[in-house]
Amino acid sequence: MTKTLAPSDFESYGPKTLDIGQDVAQLTQDLLDIFSVSGEEKCLADAVEQQLTALSHLSVVRNGDSIIARTNWGKSQRVVLAGHLDTVPLPQVEGSLGTVPSRWIEEDGEQILYGRGATDMKGGVAVQLALAATLTDAAYDITYVFYDHEEVASELSGLARLMREHRDLLTDADFAVLLEPTDGTIEGGCNGTMRFWVHCAGKAAHSGRAWVGENAIHKMGDVLTRLATYKPQTYEVEGLAYREGLNAVQIRGGVAGNVIPDAASVHINYRFAPNKTLDEAIAHVEEVFEGYELDFVDQSSAARPGLDAELSRSLIESVGQEPKPKYGWTDVARFSEIGIPAVNFGPGDALLAHTDNEHVSASAIDKCYRALKRWLIA
Amino acid sequence: MTKTLAPSDFESYGPKTLDIGQDVAQLTQDLLDIFSVSGEEKCLADAVEQQLTALSHLSVVRNGDSIIARTNWGKSQRVVLAGHLDTVPLPQVEGSLGTVPSRWIEEDGEQILYGRGATDMKGGVAVQLALAATLTDAAYDITYVFYDHEEVASELSGLARLMREHRDLLTDADFAVLLEPTDGTIEGGCNGTMRFWVHCAGKAAHSGRAWVGENAIHKMGDVLTRLATYKPQTYEVEGLAYREGLNAVQIRGGVAGNVIPDAASVHINYRFAPNKTLDEAIAHVEEVFEGYELDFVDQSSAARPGLDAELSRSLIESVGQEPKPKYGWTDVARFSEIGIPAVNFGPGDALLAHTDNEHVSASAIDKCYRALKRWLIA
Repeated sequence: MTKTLAPSDFESYGPKTLDIGQDVAQLTQDLLDIFSVSGEEKCLADAVEQQLTALSHLSVVRNGDSIIARTNWGKSQRVVLAGHLDTVPLPQVEGSLGTVPSRWIEEDGEQILYGRGATDMKGGVAVQLALAATLTDAAYDITYVFYDHEEVASELSGLARLMREHRDLLTDADFAVLLEPTDGTIEGGCNGTMRFWVHCAGKAAHSGRAWVGENAIHKMGDVLTRLATYKPQTYEVEGLAYREGLNAVQIRGGVAGNVIPDAASVHINYRFAPNKTLDEAIAHVEEVFEGYELDFVDQSSAARPGLDAELSRSLIESVGQEPKPKYGWTDVARFSEIGIPAVNFGPGDALLAHTDNEHVSASAIDKCYRALKRWLIA
Repeated sequence: MTKTLAPSDFESYGPKTLDIGQDVAQLTQDLLDIFSVSGEEKCLADAVEQQLTALSHLSVVRNGDSIIARTNWGKSQRVVLAGHLDTVPLPQVEGSLGTVPSRWIEEDGEQILYGRGATDMKGGVAVQLALAATLTDAAYDITYVFYDHEEVASELSGLARLMREHRDLLTDADFAVLLEPTDGTIEGGCNGTMRFWVHCAGKAAHSGRAWVGENAIHKMGDVLTRLATYKPQTYEVEGLAYREGLNAVQIRGGVAGNVIPDAASVHINYRFAPNKTLDEAIAHVEEVFEGYELDFVDQSSAARPGLDAELSRSLIESVGQEPKPKYGWTDVARFSEIGIPAVNFGPGDALLAHTDNEHVSASAIDKCYRALKRWLIA
């Protein structure tokens, strides 16, 4: 049995007073228990703001449902710790684990926290909050950023809005860590992504007299053959291998069973390595589809891994794991665009994000918290 | 301004008493003035039945909204004159000529009748009715067939139902003339038609990690290339050239902008010449798409032209025009299937059928009427 679930279906969901001074794994569960699907982050933003405002070592700015909290210790370098407050919608299958606000389950002797946002990314947000509560001094000044609308269209992004409306509170940083799930290692940069349509035109006719028409779907064969024979490349950037992909994600055409179609369209997604600028990536697909007009709907730059930044090297050392490339697009690209090297580092497996089976272990959250704390106070 | 029009929008539409003894062109207009979109043929069938029952030289059988009226003159040969009572729905553009029941317009000195059904095929039905009213003797016995549900799915066909439920009233004929519009000449037989889906399967994955998936749309490239490079043939059957066509009429695939599609499907229509049986046509497309499973949704045999039948030759002579092949599928194929040679011959241009601009000239209706009458009494 499936139905669309609303917040009111969950009696235990609702605004709560947070205690950011408690154990970081337990704090994650409390964050899960505050409903915050994109567009409905207010309760969670209120609770976070209230906690941060109470800390005398932070100056706090609220903007919509985003919050910037900064230390002002006068250090020579400044680090951003950033994470989004929103989650994707709740699973639609009643009774699946993701539909309950949160649940601890012991598996192989480990405490595992299930629920929407467990992986993406309330574990990371809990680490940010626990660090904000604990660190009253560190080797660097810290800018904590909590933002809304990450899981929806780019034009709604809370982080992009902060970069427009409070740019001065962000651009003075030397390095940024985005606490998106990376399963305990550092994932550098991210591939860029763009989407575009290729349209083929024909001439409609009754299919009983096909020769007076021109079949637009048949013409699409050439486009699909270019896609099928395209060999996606892997590029090494700052020691990390970025694997590209060029894929049709949708195709459509045709009006009726007896009509020669006069239009057919294929929607294509290009994921490109950070060895290219956006313009270079556009030039590449224009070459692949020479002779066709590309109708772009979406273009996001890649981000270089930023692993050669001094602060990056010390973070890698503190984490003690081999860094990896990030394939999916993340907000590190936004920091990269304003000139701040940024990496992804947070608890949980990114492959579980958005699934009905989202979960994270208490030990992963704790390990991330300790690695960042060690690095920040070193 | 567009809206969906219903019969009630037309005050002048409604049941009328027909007078089938009047001028055949004027009779056509009266037929247009009785609304008879597929499924709503009852008023027209009632009027036709009432007129035919009044004629002592006919024995009339009503079945649903179909009518069979037979002469019993004891002739050695019997001819079927068949036509459907239904029309496609009314045009949806208010004020277009097709939305008014009927209108005579003089063009270049000719009287032209506009309205839904003018071409397809109330001109032909008027000719049948006028012949039924006039001919009290002829060279052949005549079976007049008027049927419902021709413009909709094959399983609803009134003619197919008559062939199941009153087979004996139809199979004793030697030849059939279907009064579908052929613009004054005889169109022999018809191409067959079949529709089938070709499905390609893949494996879903996030498009940021395309290499763990398998793109079903890319695989479709091979199918489209086979279609694009396919050379449709023309076959001569009994002196008429039948042009074939193999065409994609719909394509679909993909679920979201960031998902590697695990399924893609193309819907294909094959129009094949009457030099092939249905089985031979199936074998042909199975060869073209070797390696793929074909998911058939629709299969209709072709009909040989029937021009070598003795009655056909005398009709050709009476019409005095070079016969042509019929490309579109028509009910001649149903007569052909039960062993009765059949041709299409009726007033109006088939290319106008189903358009908002449907029309037929008074002279074309009259010419068809006189050619058939001349042939029947010869």
